[in-house]
Amino acid sequence: MHKLFEKTKSAYRPAYLLSQVSSLLGWDQETHMPKAGIKARSAQKEYIAGLCHKMSTASQFESALKELLVCQDLSKEEKCAANLWNRDFQKATKLPKSFVERWTATCSEAVHTWQIARENNDFKAFCPHLKTIFELSAERAEYLSYKDHLYDALLDEYEPDATSAQINMLFADLKPFLIDLTKQSASDPRPLPPGPYPVDAQMRYVADLMQEMGLEPHHTRLDMSAHPFCTTLAPTDVRMTTHVTKDTPIPNISAVMHEGGHCLYERGLPEQFAGTPLCDSISLGIHESQSRFWEVIIGQSRSFWEYAYPKLKETFPQLKDFSLDDFYKTLNRVQPSLIRVHADEVTYTLHIIMRYELEKDLLTKSLAPKDLPDAWNAKMQEYLGITPPSDAMGCLQDMHWACGNIGYFPTYALGNLYSAQFFAKFTNTYPDYSNRIASGDLRFITTWLKKQIHCHGRLYSAPELCKQVTGSPLTSTPYRQYLSIKYK
Amino acid sequence: MHKLFEKTKSAYRPAYLLSQVSSLLGWDQETHMPKAGIKARSAQKEYIAGLCHKMSTASQFESALKELLVCQDLSKEEKCAANLWNRDFQKATKLPKSFVERWTATCSEAVHTWQIARENNDFKAFCPHLKTIFELSAERAEYLSYKDHLYDALLDEYEPDATSAQINMLFADLKPFLIDLTKQSASDPRPLPPGPYPVDAQMRYVADLMQEMGLEPHHTRLDMSAHPFCTTLAPTDVRMTTHVTKDTPIPNISAVMHEGGHCLYERGLPEQFAGTPLCDSISLGIHESQSRFWEVIIGQSRSFWEYAYPKLKETFPQLKDFSLDDFYKTLNRVQPSLIRVHADEVTYTLHIIMRYELEKDLLTKSLAPKDLPDAWNAKMQEYLGITPPSDAMGCLQDMHWACGNIGYFPTYALGNLYSAQFFAKFTNTYPDYSNRIASGDLRFITTWLKKQIHCHGRLYSAPELCKQVTGSPLTSTPYRQYLSIKYK
Repeated sequence: MHKLFEKTKSAYRPAYLLSQVSSLLGWDQETHMPKAGIKARSAQKEYIAGLCHKMSTASQFESALKELLVCQDLSKEEKCAANLWNRDFQKATKLPKSFVERWTATCSEAVHTWQIARENNDFKAFCPHLKTIFELSAERAEYLSYKDHLYDALLDEYEPDATSAQINMLFADLKPFLIDLTKQSASDPRPLPPGPYPVDAQMRYVADLMQEMGLEPHHTRLDMSAHPFCTTLAPTDVRMTTHVTKDTPIPNISAVMHEGGHCLYERGLPEQFAGTPLCDSISLGIHESQSRFWEVIIGQSRSFWEYAYPKLKETFPQLKDFSLDDFYKTLNRVQPSLIRVHADEVTYTLHIIMRYELEKDLLTKSLAPKDLPDAWNAKMQEYLGITPPSDAMGCLQDMHWACGNIGYFPTYALGNLYSAQFFAKFTNTYPDYSNRIASGDLRFITTWLKKQIHCHGRLYSAPELCKQVTGSPLTSTPYRQYLSIKYK
Repeated sequence: MHKLFEKTKSAYRPAYLLSQVSSLLGWDQETHMPKAGIKARSAQKEYIAGLCHKMSTASQFESALKELLVCQDLSKEEKCAANLWNRDFQKATKLPKSFVERWTATCSEAVHTWQIARENNDFKAFCPHLKTIFELSAERAEYLSYKDHLYDALLDEYEPDATSAQINMLFADLKPFLIDLTKQSASDPRPLPPGPYPVDAQMRYVADLMQEMGLEPHHTRLDMSAHPFCTTLAPTDVRMTTHVTKDTPIPNISAVMHEGGHCLYERGLPEQFAGTPLCDSISLGIHESQSRFWEVIIGQSRSFWEYAYPKLKETFPQLKDFSLDDFYKTLNRVQPSLIRVHADEVTYTLHIIMRYELEKDLLTKSLAPKDLPDAWNAKMQEYLGITPPSDAMGCLQDMHWACGNIGYFPTYALGNLYSAQFFAKFTNTYPDYSNRIASGDLRFITTWLKKQIHCHGRLYSAPELCKQVTGSPLTSTPYRQYLSIKYK
């Protein structure tokens, strides 16, 4: 390792450790923290976020980085890390410390209020927080700067170099295709036999599944939270959560495979570069491609359930007379529905498209926060033909806006597109893939994804990686082909 | 609030928040952290400890404190806080930052090794860590300074102003009394009916008990860990752990009442002074007096079980034909035994006395770490007449030395003495106390302890508080009287 690289890494260490501590504060808040701890937690998070910001923009780091940037004899990886550090540094210095602290405290309290508001179906309680979040987001976008649209500054935080113009084009293409496909492929299969599907038995089933995917308890925890998520405390300490209901095991299994896909990406990053930007994910779109690959492409495939269904039947005796065919149809039931995280893969992206349109309008103030419930319900009617019976099942369902994650939703759609394009390459590489999966081999998928995608960390940009893995830039063709073959 | 007080409190805030973050890092490590996360956790803890030390000795805080110390128009509480801040500041500045970081990293790895060494009964694996801990402790004592004995510097960290000379005197008095009482009162009651006592049922029972003591889940969590402990993340976020075995519910109930006593103390501190030294406990001896009050004086009393035993019988059907009298006798069985945390109240302090003698010898190098198992076993034979069959059940049983807590053990004995002296006052105040407890009223105990002890925080020293509550300084008389009445 080059001396100057070592020096920069040392100077960056405080920010790295503080970001891990931040992750713990966030994980604990969502999983185990006693409710009354929220005010103190907000103060702790605000302070650590401010400190992390201070450390990642410290003059000691800046001067080491400056030296590194002009150094001529770095390896390819070191050169790349230097550029990424510089990119992140430029971004971080655009946000004043006082703004970062205000932002963190606002979001922390908003999340808390959102949880209660969702429970009580009380949009009015959450509305002032939503208003503040979007006002601060506009302020944030101005600090971060942008070329064409306010929204691009925020989108860039999750999907570097993507723009709302590109997303608009992609969605203009996808929206009619998906509305049409929804109408054509809507199905009404035999419903899953009624519960209870005991929580303990569900948790044993998904724990085994995690191991089969390559997620060892030695490195990876599973907990419960209102909204499933994955967070990384260190390359050797990755945590995910799920959400369990006794009525059906499917949302739990989906969440575990989804978050498991995220965790495998985090676990597969190049650990030898821990503490540098190389040991990090490329973008949320790429991250989401990994979770959707596991949750949907594998986890809702016939070959996977040829292997996994007998064990599910063993675990839940009420499935005894419910055939694999019935189960597969239920799992892949296409039907307009209210909750994004439970949506089928055909309607899913329509949920994303409406959120994208709404958050852009909220940001530019062409939609007032108080009018969100009406606007939400109107779009649900237009795209999916249904109207939520309550805000809890409508505009209060997602945590993202409460967390301040504006510009995040489109990355879910990009994830779907990337996953389908990676899958097309995967099936070319392994023509016998469905037999292998049906026989219970999941590890070769983990190995392929790690070798193709995870192990590079941030060495390539999302477009570069896509080209390297699949041979061509991202298009919506593989995704539409995949859906057409499966559903038409 | 005085302006200068406010200013000092603000300058102290970073150290306060970092100490809360430290508590979370420690709690998570002992309860939920995936095993492979240990190295990263050590780095995080080391960094935060160093930063906390830096912030609690920062020049901004120092200059605010200097102004505060000479200010003439402070309230009694503010004056007291200023003196405590000064005391803590003087102490903190004696330890160099590099030493604090080395210390934290050493202890973190030692704890990890100790856990595995205890599982594998492998003292040799732990021995090098123990050696380093005691060497660093001697170094620590020199930094902290002392008058008569190296040990006093360490003891003072847990029990301000106490000395080994005083402890020697107290123990010289107690040791023969306890050895004698053990012989006189050794009993062999009917054993508890065999298990399993299912873990889930135990956890429901102790959760109810916590609520009856006044520990609401809103503010207080219960988890499991190798060694039960209590930690405070904020006045509104207090956490305790227990250790559960299917064979008997008694250790779990004892641990929950013990740690529950600690938690009630933390919850009862004057929250209006949060972020100042006033909202803190006085000493470990006083802390332990609260846990032992609940665990032993209440939790092993006949009147408590008149109330609590019927519900225990309901929870565990195998107790159906086991009378309250049998249960009370089993609970208060006096018998020399190997494990301190399971020891009866007569032999308990003998376990403490031998640990105190051994750690003093390890510190002054009159005992070599490699000879600890032999020395341990010899004392067990001398005081209790038994020899451990393994180091796991001998000198590896406690976490304290691995944590670097040298000088901590005697505070357990002081806790017993204080608890008995407080109890004597309590029984004078409530002559009908046993009827009230037998009827299921526990909250009046919580209220009395809070009003007499908790709500003052650190406003009084331990000797001052003892005098104020009981009318006289600490002596061993109430403790010996209490034991004599119960066991002779």
